[in-house]
Amino acid sequence: MSLVITNIGELVTNSGSGRGRLGIVEDAAVVVADGKIAWVGSAADAPAADERIDADGAAVLPGFVDSHAHLVFAGDRAAEFGARMAGEPYTGGGIRTTVGATRDASDDELRRAAGRLVTEMRRQGTTTIEIKSGYGLDVEHEARSLRIAAELTSETTFLGAHVVPAEYQNDPWKYVSLVCGPMLAAARPYAKWIDVFCERGAFDEDQARTVLSAGKDAGLGLRVHGNQLGPGPGVQLAVEMGAASVDHCTHLDDADVEALASTGFDCMCADGGHTTTVATLLPGAEFSTRSPYPDARRLLDAGVTVALATDCNPGSSYTSSMSFCIALAVREMRMTPAEAVWAATAGGAQALRRGDVGRIAVGARADLMILDAPSHLHLAYRPGVPLIRTVLHDGVP
Amino acid sequence: MSLVITNIGELVTNSGSGRGRLGIVEDAAVVVADGKIAWVGSAADAPAADERIDADGAAVLPGFVDSHAHLVFAGDRAAEFGARMAGEPYTGGGIRTTVGATRDASDDELRRAAGRLVTEMRRQGTTTIEIKSGYGLDVEHEARSLRIAAELTSETTFLGAHVVPAEYQNDPWKYVSLVCGPMLAAARPYAKWIDVFCERGAFDEDQARTVLSAGKDAGLGLRVHGNQLGPGPGVQLAVEMGAASVDHCTHLDDADVEALASTGFDCMCADGGHTTTVATLLPGAEFSTRSPYPDARRLLDAGVTVALATDCNPGSSYTSSMSFCIALAVREMRMTPAEAVWAATAGGAQALRRGDVGRIAVGARADLMILDAPSHLHLAYRPGVPLIRTVLHDGVP
Ligand SMILES: [Zn+2]
Ligand SMILES: [Zn+2]
Repeated sequence: MSLVITNIGELVTNSGSGRGRLGIVEDAAVVVADGKIAWVGSAADAPAADERIDADGAAVLPGFVDSHAHLVFAGDRAAEFGARMAGEPYTGGGIRTTVGATRDASDDELRRAAGRLVTEMRRQGTTTIEIKSGYGLDVEHEARSLRIAAELTSETTFLGAHVVPAEYQNDPWKYVSLVCGPMLAAARPYAKWIDVFCERGAFDEDQARTVLSAGKDAGLGLRVHGNQLGPGPGVQLAVEMGAASVDHCTHLDDADVEALASTGFDCMCADGGHTTTVATLLPGAEFSTRSPYPDARRLLDAGVTVALATDCNPGSSYTSSMSFCIALAVREMRMTPAEAVWAATAGGAQALRRGDVGRIAVGARADLMILDAPSHLHLAYRPGVPLIRTVLHDGVP
Repeated sequence: MSLVITNIGELVTNSGSGRGRLGIVEDAAVVVADGKIAWVGSAADAPAADERIDADGAAVLPGFVDSHAHLVFAGDRAAEFGARMAGEPYTGGGIRTTVGATRDASDDELRRAAGRLVTEMRRQGTTTIEIKSGYGLDVEHEARSLRIAAELTSETTFLGAHVVPAEYQNDPWKYVSLVCGPMLAAARPYAKWIDVFCERGAFDEDQARTVLSAGKDAGLGLRVHGNQLGPGPGVQLAVEMGAASVDHCTHLDDADVEALASTGFDCMCADGGHTTTVATLLPGAEFSTRSPYPDARRLLDAGVTVALATDCNPGSSYTSSMSFCIALAVREMRMTPAEAVWAATAGGAQALRRGDVGRIAVGARADLMILDAPSHLHLAYRPGVPLIRTVLHDGVP
């Protein structure tokens, strides 16, 4: 079964010889077969196919790659959000509320809640989704969270080191041992990545290095939450350990920026030899916590590879919209619309070290979207508007 | 044909004896008949109806009232937006580009473009839409714009005094005479309101007063664009003339705030005797032009009636999403989620001096929406996410 998309107003390829950073091709057609991009070229030369989608002059882009999301949890924290925004005191438990609700939920409840968010993301154009654990915080519930995450995506991340749970508050190293020992062993069958929240109030540099080393030894790829709430060792540690991405990057010094830039820029054509540590920015978190935004311009000007992701979670960023993150990146972080769209597609792919998504090129997965707009610019130009008309995931509308 | 909505998680009525500013009722049901709200009460007492919608625990709210939108135009200004955001020089014509494209478009092109935006708004929960002219700027094209607007809404606004067109640049009073004479006469059959852009670079106080007086004499209600780009006489003039709303209100001094507060707060139960001048805030414009936001907190604390609207237009705010405006109002203007939701529903209704929309009460129009969320809080808590599941307009899903 093959399918051709014609009458494309603007094709964003993120590759090849197209125009600018986004590799834009005009008057293009795309052929999809067996879940892959089979052909990209001038509409005039398009081969025949079994089915046809008329894009009616709309822009066609790679599906969004959301490389940072916390989707396995129960309940929400709407009341906490409302109180924070109204400047009222709130005596709820913060993340502990979510940990408690998640532990208490049945498998099916968690599966349904996470599945609902995945569906919501798909409708908004996201075709690759990373999902972290981190609301179980014990062996049984971290493993369960990852088992459920693995039903929904191949990009699963073990985040037992999200926060030190209440029961280990007086002995965080004891919790680190648990994470690196039995918890990692139980999570391992379902996890592709390991992540750690390296921040004052969570895990310090030594603890974070211990967690990442254990994960690396177990064959997991590395990711880091770092430098969100203040300056810290997260970025340097991520670079030192060869992490695929360090996420948040809100408070950086010059050495952090240099370290990130020194990791270079991967060509994503092949699958091996990736060395870049991507800076993944999560402006939804700054939006929802009324915090200052990271300085994307500084990172881009220094040559750092930047990705955008939602950080979708019930505490600090409950958006699932990559379009919204693009609009924020342009308004608040001075990324150009093209840089922001690249970061939300190819950037996310690099942050997951994936060469098969985030671009429209022969051989890549047929993950793409047709906008209700003639240009990628509209994703920032028309903030808040649902502009994703059609999403193809593995070639299936 | 009657319809009952049951299993409502939270009913926002904006009226009656419900909880707080939003008049929230829990365990409520709503019955709709003949396009009106026929019954509101406890689910246990709900009368039978021909059809039933199970809200599945979701929040039900009045439809959004978008009291400020410029929808009759041709073309877009995406390239101008992209250049502005990238900090690049742009030598396009700004609003003149849109005026030229609008004059050149056929009736059907304008109708299709405006209709598409109205459809987009409806899908996002907006059930009452004000539509302004203002991209014709001559007798023929202003009248035509309003004729097309009147096919789409009863809330039509003559904005011939949007900007002084190029051909009158050296004699703005001559253009004012045209607006108040033949243009008003041609627009009058299709217009309910008159509006003027009272701002440095557009129309000064005397010119604006002349326009508003002519509109008033012709039986139109009054609206004002004022104090957007800097301090100015717009707010005081709006209050002096008894305008229903003054829109933008970004740069206010104490006297402006006092003047607005002095107009009081209308009970919207009856249709007559409205005297409030609403301050309508348009944060989409500040978002898309990277400008400082109006100080909603100051207005609310002074007792001013505040509305939120999109200002949907291709130059400075091409969002059609009231949910997005709510999220911005909470993040950037320190409105509480409840204040923002009120402003986007009941506030918009007050800005249009409508007692029959913006609330869920017996006799009001059956304009309401069912969210994909249990509470109104989610409109701010989940920014950018399309949360409007079902929209009833005049009782019809
Ligand atoms: Zn996170
Ligand atoms: Zn306007």
